[in-house]
Amino acid sequence: MSSYLSVKEAQQRILKVFNVKPVEFVVLEQANRRVLAQDIIANVNLPPFDNSSMDGFAVRTEDVKLATHDSPVILQVVADIPAGISPALTIQPGQAARIMTGAQMPKGADAVVPVEYTDASQDPNSRLPEQVRIFHAPRPGEYVRPTGQDVRQGQTVLNAGRKLSPQDIGLLASLGVTPVPVYQKARVALLTTGDELIQPDQPLTPGKIRDSNSYTLAAMIEMSDAIPIRLGNAPDDPLVIQKYLDLAVDQKVDLILTSAGVSVGTYDFVRNIIEQHGHLEFWRVNMRPGKPIAFGAYKGIPLIGLPGNPVSSFVGFMVFVRPILQKMAGIPQGRGDFLRVRLAEPVESDGRETYFRCSISVEKGVLTATLAGHQGSANLVGLTKANALLIVPAGVKSLPTGAELEAWPISSDFA
Amino acid sequence: MSSYLSVKEAQQRILKVFNVKPVEFVVLEQANRRVLAQDIIANVNLPPFDNSSMDGFAVRTEDVKLATHDSPVILQVVADIPAGISPALTIQPGQAARIMTGAQMPKGADAVVPVEYTDASQDPNSRLPEQVRIFHAPRPGEYVRPTGQDVRQGQTVLNAGRKLSPQDIGLLASLGVTPVPVYQKARVALLTTGDELIQPDQPLTPGKIRDSNSYTLAAMIEMSDAIPIRLGNAPDDPLVIQKYLDLAVDQKVDLILTSAGVSVGTYDFVRNIIEQHGHLEFWRVNMRPGKPIAFGAYKGIPLIGLPGNPVSSFVGFMVFVRPILQKMAGIPQGRGDFLRVRLAEPVESDGRETYFRCSISVEKGVLTATLAGHQGSANLVGLTKANALLIVPAGVKSLPTGAELEAWPISSDFA
Repeated sequence: MSSYLSVKEAQQRILKVFNVKPVEFVVLEQANRRVLAQDIIANVNLPPFDNSSMDGFAVRTEDVKLATHDSPVILQVVADIPAGISPALTIQPGQAARIMTGAQMPKGADAVVPVEYTDASQDPNSRLPEQVRIFHAPRPGEYVRPTGQDVRQGQTVLNAGRKLSPQDIGLLASLGVTPVPVYQKARVALLTTGDELIQPDQPLTPGKIRDSNSYTLAAMIEMSDAIPIRLGNAPDDPLVIQKYLDLAVDQKVDLILTSAGVSVGTYDFVRNIIEQHGHLEFWRVNMRPGKPIAFGAYKGIPLIGLPGNPVSSFVGFMVFVRPILQKMAGIPQGRGDFLRVRLAEPVESDGRETYFRCSISVEKGVLTATLAGHQGSANLVGLTKANALLIVPAGVKSLPTGAELEAWPISSDFA
Repeated sequence: MSSYLSVKEAQQRILKVFNVKPVEFVVLEQANRRVLAQDIIANVNLPPFDNSSMDGFAVRTEDVKLATHDSPVILQVVADIPAGISPALTIQPGQAARIMTGAQMPKGADAVVPVEYTDASQDPNSRLPEQVRIFHAPRPGEYVRPTGQDVRQGQTVLNAGRKLSPQDIGLLASLGVTPVPVYQKARVALLTTGDELIQPDQPLTPGKIRDSNSYTLAAMIEMSDAIPIRLGNAPDDPLVIQKYLDLAVDQKVDLILTSAGVSVGTYDFVRNIIEQHGHLEFWRVNMRPGKPIAFGAYKGIPLIGLPGNPVSSFVGFMVFVRPILQKMAGIPQGRGDFLRVRLAEPVESDGRETYFRCSISVEKGVLTATLAGHQGSANLVGLTKANALLIVPAGVKSLPTGAELEAWPISSDFA
C-alpha cells in the first residue's frame, strides 16, 4: 500500500476494467460531437449524377469548338433544366439546354458554358430564349461535376471512433445515413464529501469553503462525452454517504466518481464504506499533483476516488478518468491529444511525473509553453489562466529553456 | 453590383449591424462554455482562512525547532480540528492540535507537521492521542496555505467576454458567484431552399440530391454559441419561401440564414422576396470558394444568404456568420482563432482571398499545413479530412514550401 505506482501502470490497471459502450442510434440533429460507432460506407456516388457547376448552357463541345467573342456559335435552346429534375432528352448537334447550378446534365452534352459567356439574360425572371449565342469554346467536361467526384459508392468515408463534426454531419446527410450509429454516452455519478463544504449559493461561514469540485468535474464529464449524474455533497457521515452511493447503484451508472474522502485523514469515511461493500485499492501514484487515488468498486459499480484539492482533482480526472470515458465513448486510445511544445523558461521538478499548469502560445509557428500562475494544488486561478498541462516525465528534475516536452490542452481557447 | 468587395470590407459592413446580446443569469450547472457578461471581482479571499495542506498537527514552530527523528519533541494534544469548523482555542506553548487537510489553523500555531513525521496513528478511526511526538522541525508557514494565497478579495479573477471552462466554473463556485451573468445566446433561423433537395431519410430519386447544408449549418450555429431554429427546406416557390421567412419573423430571431437561392439562376426566388419585403445587397466578394453572398433584411430581421454548394456555404459561414455570432455572444473580436502555420507543399491560387481545406499537424513543435483532399466547392470529403482552412491572402498567386500563412482551425481534433 505504501509503494508508488507509475502513472502508466495505474492508468492501465484502471482502463482494463472498462469497455466501450453499446451502440445507439440518434437523428442527424443530435449527432454533432457524438462518436461514430460503425464505419460508414457510401451506398451512393456523390454527386449521384453528372451536374453543372454553373448557371449556363449545356452544350456539345464539338458544336462550339470555334466559338469566340467575335465569332459566336448560335445554338437552338431545346430545354430548360432546373436543379432537381432528371432530363429525359438528348442534346442533338446544334442544340443546347439552359441549365442551372447543380442540375443534372442532359445526355449528349459534355460541357457547360456559363451564362456570362452567352448573350442570354442573367435575369432570374427571363423567359427561355429560342436561341443562344455562345462566345466561348469549352473543354470537354468544363463546368461539369462528374458522378462520384467526391465519393465513390462502396468507399469508406468515415471511420468508427470518430467524433462527428458539422462537416461530417453534412456528409452523412448527403449519403442518407440517418439515424446515425453512435456509442451510448457513459453515465458517471459524482459525489463530493466533506463537512467543510457548503454550496455556492450559501453564505460562507467560518471554517467552511464552497464546493467547487462537483461543478468543475460535472463540466469535465460533459466535455468528455459522458453524462454527469450529480449525487450531491455528502457530509462526513457514513450512513449518508452510503445512501448517496446506493442512489448511484440504483441508477446503474457506469462509474462512481468521488472527490475527497480518500486521503489518510481521520474524517474520511468513503474508503471504509467501500471496503465494506466492495473492494478498494488505495494507490499512491508517482505523480504530482494528485498522488493519492482510490480505485475499486461499490456493490459492483467501478469507483474512482479523486483527491479533494481542486487542482489535484482536476489533474486526477484528466489522467485517470478521461481515458476511461474516452474508452467507453469509443474514441481510440492514443496520444493524439498531446502536443509537443518547447519550454520558454527552465523548469524544476521533484522527480515525480509532474503536471504543471502552463500557457501554450504559437511563437513564429512554434508551440511554446510558459508556466501559468501559482502551482499550488488548492489554487484554481492558475488553472483558469492555463490552457494546457505541461508534463514533466518521472525521473526528470530539471529542464532548460528550449527543451521539448508534451503538453495536454485543457482549454478550447487554444486552437 | 458587379464590383468585387474585399472579404474584410464585406465582414465590416455586416458586423456593424449586430450588437452584443443582453445579459441573462444561469445556474453554475449550465454555465460551462457560456460567455461571461461581467467582470468577476472576488468578494472573499481564497482560501478564506489560513488552513492546513496536510493531515497532521498544528504546532508553534518555536516549540519544535530542535525536533529530529532521534530527538523528538513531545507536545500536548489539546484539540482535534476537522475540516469545516472554526477553532476557538489558541495553541499555547507546548501544545498542538490534530488538524486535517483543509481545516482552519488555530490561533497560536504557525505550521503543520504531517502525521507521517509524528508518532500518531494514520488510521482514520484512531482516537485523539493525549500527546504527540514530533520528529521534524517545520519552517514557519510550512504546510499552511495562507488566506488569499489564490485570490485576494477585490481582485478581478475573470473578465467579461470569456468563454467559461470547467475550471472557471470551479472558481466561480468557490467565490459563490451563482447565478452567473452570461450573454444570451443569439437565435438564428435557418432556411435551405431548392426543388432539388430531399431530406436525408428519403430515398434518392433521379436529379435530386440530399439536403446537407441545413444539418452542417445547424451544428455550426450550435458550436458558435447560438441556437439554430430550423425552418426547414423550402421548394423553389415564392409563397412557400415567404411563409417560412414569416415564421422566422414571428419568432423574433436575431438573424435569418438562407442557403442557396442567391446566385444568378432563374430558379432562385429568395432574392426577389427579400427585395419586396426589406432590402438586399448582393455582393460578389473577392474570395473563393463562396464568392456570392447576399446581405440585407427581411421585415426588419437581418438576413444573410449563403451559396448552396456545401463547401462554399461552410466557408461563407466561417467568414461572415461566425464573427457575427461571436459578436452577439460577447466574445471579443480578434484574430485569436488563427494559427500561424508553415506550408508543407507549394500552393497556387488565383489572386482571390482563398480558403483551402488543409490538415495541420505539429512537426517537431512546428505547425505545418498540408492541403486536404479535392478542393472543389461541392465536395464534402475534403472538408471532413481537413482540420483547418488555410488562408491565402488576396493578390497572392503562388507560395513556396515553408511559407508562413494563417490557418483557421475547424475541428476539435486539432488541439
